[in-house]
Amino acid sequence: MAQNAKPARAAVIGGGVIGGGWVARLIQNGVDVAIFDPDPEAPRKISEIMENAHRAITGLTMAPLPAAGALRFASSIADAVGGAALIVEAVPERLDIKQSVYAEIEAAAPADAIISSSTSGILPTDLQAEMKTPERLLVGHPFNPVYLLPLVELVGGEKTAPDTIERAASFFSALGMHPLKIRKEIEAFVADRFLEAVWREALWLVKDGIATTEEIDDAIRFGFGLRWAQMGLFETYRVAGGEAGMAHFIAQFGPCLKWPWTKLMDVPELTDELVQAISDQSDAQSGMHSIRELERIRDTNLVAIMQALKANDWGAGKTLAAWETALYDSAAPEGMSDESGPLETMRQQVPASWTDYNGHMNEARYLDCFSMATDAVMRHIGVDAEYLAAGGSYFTVETHIRHLDEVTAGTEIFATSQVLLGEGKKMQLFHHLYAADGDTPRLLATGEHMLIHVDMQARSSSLPSDMVATNLTRLAAAHAEMPKPDGAGRAIGS
Amino acid sequence: MAQNAKPARAAVIGGGVIGGGWVARLIQNGVDVAIFDPDPEAPRKISEIMENAHRAITGLTMAPLPAAGALRFASSIADAVGGAALIVEAVPERLDIKQSVYAEIEAAAPADAIISSSTSGILPTDLQAEMKTPERLLVGHPFNPVYLLPLVELVGGEKTAPDTIERAASFFSALGMHPLKIRKEIEAFVADRFLEAVWREALWLVKDGIATTEEIDDAIRFGFGLRWAQMGLFETYRVAGGEAGMAHFIAQFGPCLKWPWTKLMDVPELTDELVQAISDQSDAQSGMHSIRELERIRDTNLVAIMQALKANDWGAGKTLAAWETALYDSAAPEGMSDESGPLETMRQQVPASWTDYNGHMNEARYLDCFSMATDAVMRHIGVDAEYLAAGGSYFTVETHIRHLDEVTAGTEIFATSQVLLGEGKKMQLFHHLYAADGDTPRLLATGEHMLIHVDMQARSSSLPSDMVATNLTRLAAAHAEMPKPDGAGRAIGS
Repeated sequence: MAQNAKPARAAVIGGGVIGGGWVARLIQNGVDVAIFDPDPEAPRKISEIMENAHRAITGLTMAPLPAAGALRFASSIADAVGGAALIVEAVPERLDIKQSVYAEIEAAAPADAIISSSTSGILPTDLQAEMKTPERLLVGHPFNPVYLLPLVELVGGEKTAPDTIERAASFFSALGMHPLKIRKEIEAFVADRFLEAVWREALWLVKDGIATTEEIDDAIRFGFGLRWAQMGLFETYRVAGGEAGMAHFIAQFGPCLKWPWTKLMDVPELTDELVQAISDQSDAQSGMHSIRELERIRDTNLVAIMQALKANDWGAGKTLAAWETALYDSAAPEGMSDESGPLETMRQQVPASWTDYNGHMNEARYLDCFSMATDAVMRHIGVDAEYLAAGGSYFTVETHIRHLDEVTAGTEIFATSQVLLGEGKKMQLFHHLYAADGDTPRLLATGEHMLIHVDMQARSSSLPSDMVATNLTRLAAAHAEMPKPDGAGRAIGS
Repeated sequence: MAQNAKPARAAVIGGGVIGGGWVARLIQNGVDVAIFDPDPEAPRKISEIMENAHRAITGLTMAPLPAAGALRFASSIADAVGGAALIVEAVPERLDIKQSVYAEIEAAAPADAIISSSTSGILPTDLQAEMKTPERLLVGHPFNPVYLLPLVELVGGEKTAPDTIERAASFFSALGMHPLKIRKEIEAFVADRFLEAVWREALWLVKDGIATTEEIDDAIRFGFGLRWAQMGLFETYRVAGGEAGMAHFIAQFGPCLKWPWTKLMDVPELTDELVQAISDQSDAQSGMHSIRELERIRDTNLVAIMQALKANDWGAGKTLAAWETALYDSAAPEGMSDESGPLETMRQQVPASWTDYNGHMNEARYLDCFSMATDAVMRHIGVDAEYLAAGGSYFTVETHIRHLDEVTAGTEIFATSQVLLGEGKKMQLFHHLYAADGDTPRLLATGEHMLIHVDMQARSSSLPSDMVATNLTRLAAAHAEMPKPDGAGRAIGS
């Protein structure tokens, strides 16, 4: 498969929650975006979404993000789509509106631009029916918040070119998403068919007074919702079926399908009374939080869940890891190529999950920062994925941290690193951790570390490869010109 | 509300996936359990579930678990239920079988024992119809894996006493669960109505060749499944509706309910062909993992997700935190009351998420262990939740770690702690971290730490309270009798 490639430029038509979410994902991935939305409030709304997205994504990953793309508010659809390789349509769910938008896009867009509709359910064959160049239209259906959730359903219509699907999949993968190619177009595609079924049943439960909105939410998030964040329906049931397997599970559970367990086809009438009941219950459940607060709670939770899954190399965590690998690969070593001073070896926002009962970044997270900084030095001297796979690494044998100042969630922090010693099996490092929250960096901590090169098979100390030894010797010699840092060589309480 | 209380003794009737999960949750919470299941394979199956549960729960929490309850395989229902305060029924989903089980239970159980059915959908009014003491039967519907997922739906029948529901809620809360009281009994209660609707729709998608089992699972776990692990349907949509609120969202989304987005009432015929297709697709999707492996992957993911939510003080993470608080509260200080030697200050299994690319516990996690050990010393001298709330705490100002040996996921580790200095604002601690994976503890690392007492409002150093100062002075004096530990006072590379 060819390398995934971001679109060089993108246009987004429609700046609501979904369009704004696309803008934020594109911008954060370094893509220049032109957006068109006639709503005079659009710039404010988009900037709020971008602020949320920035907060979430800088907490999500420690990988080096590219410089943010530029955002331009276009004066018309024609103005927006000029020069775009990817055009995302996110206007209201009415076929006539969407078709007239496509006509305007076709009149002004580059001939090879892909047109991706964000519709939740309209068939791409219907969307492309009036187009001059229908082969380049597909549905790319994302999920809110678009800047965090990886899923995008790709659905082609009868006239969509297979290459359009492939190019779109490459674009979206490069943006850190998980493109799911849907085999046949049906209304609502796959995910929203489930959401529709659940939503309909939930309305009945409220209407019939079986459960409130809060109770329904709790029935989801304390139970199967936790399962579905990592395995879906079938893999979950495969496990539940146990040794007897999937066929056994179906034999057991199958008959229940005939029982009257859902309201199914009936649709509850959306009377004013029912809408009011839902609205009141929702207020009682969530009204203590503003929408902005709820968005941030949701995003913080999603970030933490995706990071948790990444540590387990599973599901959405795998998508995150692949995106980070690409970010590391494409972050040129320029930032670290100058060896005449300390290397900048980490930079990120303090995630909320790093804070503790004292209201500041937990002491153990200081060592997380220094561990990342050490990893960056290791990569700088050639200890990369390939080197690790070949069986060489450095293990830390001693750590000395001076915790000099507090730092709270959301603050940007960064580390610089100096090599104190690099010879034979030994590498001695000294890191400074700073907060970038004032005119000058505020020193938070220093970390001094002794590392020993190891043979990962024998789990015993060994000499590094010639390549690594050469790089380390050169770096150590350059850093020997710098003064010995304050606090190096200290013992506790001395 | 009265303090939640675990049942003094429990009986479980039926040792399948659900019954075995109940056994594991009860045993891990220190409750003695008698189980009855006529299957000669039951002891093996239960022991496998208990092994999984032990692995998961010791990775889930760092709180002090009580000594495991005793498990007894009873020879009959009558033998099992004697002396039990809670009797869990988890036999096959047939009303006649369940009713005959209740008759046997009633003949032998203590008069005040609660009988909790694990049924996924049968009405409690039907379950209790033939009972002599129907007032003490309720449905307590759990979710697989029962030892990890917090949700339990509590449903009473027409004859269920309100006090039965309250006592059951107290039992289940004390076991770390989230009891959800369902207002009215309907078939399948709340959660399974959603699962039924989704399952039915999923079968159609497979049958019609729209998506494979893997694609359906991916449509869930890369998208809305992530959302549902932390917010449910209504709160998610409240956020999506944005500033315009819930009523606006319903007005927008409501009309779609009339569109043909689900198969709804129709039930796909479970032909041999369809069952085979699902089975084959499931093999292609998950066949590279054994069921045991899948169980562990699932559990590791659920543990990580719940821990992530705990860090955010949200949803299932709040349930976990409340359970841990109760564990800490009920762990008598006995374990630490002897001050003549080092205190044992932490003990747990190394979670898989703590390991890194070198295949061992990451260097930063050593400081997590020492941070926990420090917290335990602080609690020992009286720096508890109340003290913190009143504005006093200790902050670490200096850390020295000697990383002496590696440790891998799943290994039991523990720390002991010695006070080197405790006077004025200062507290100097020395921790040893050991692996309990051989005949004698294997030393993994030492941690030396200087802490300063702080006034949390002023964020500046201050003297501890008299109570804390007295406790610390007493502990430091006792520990001064011990030899100075090897490695104390060292500097890096010295």
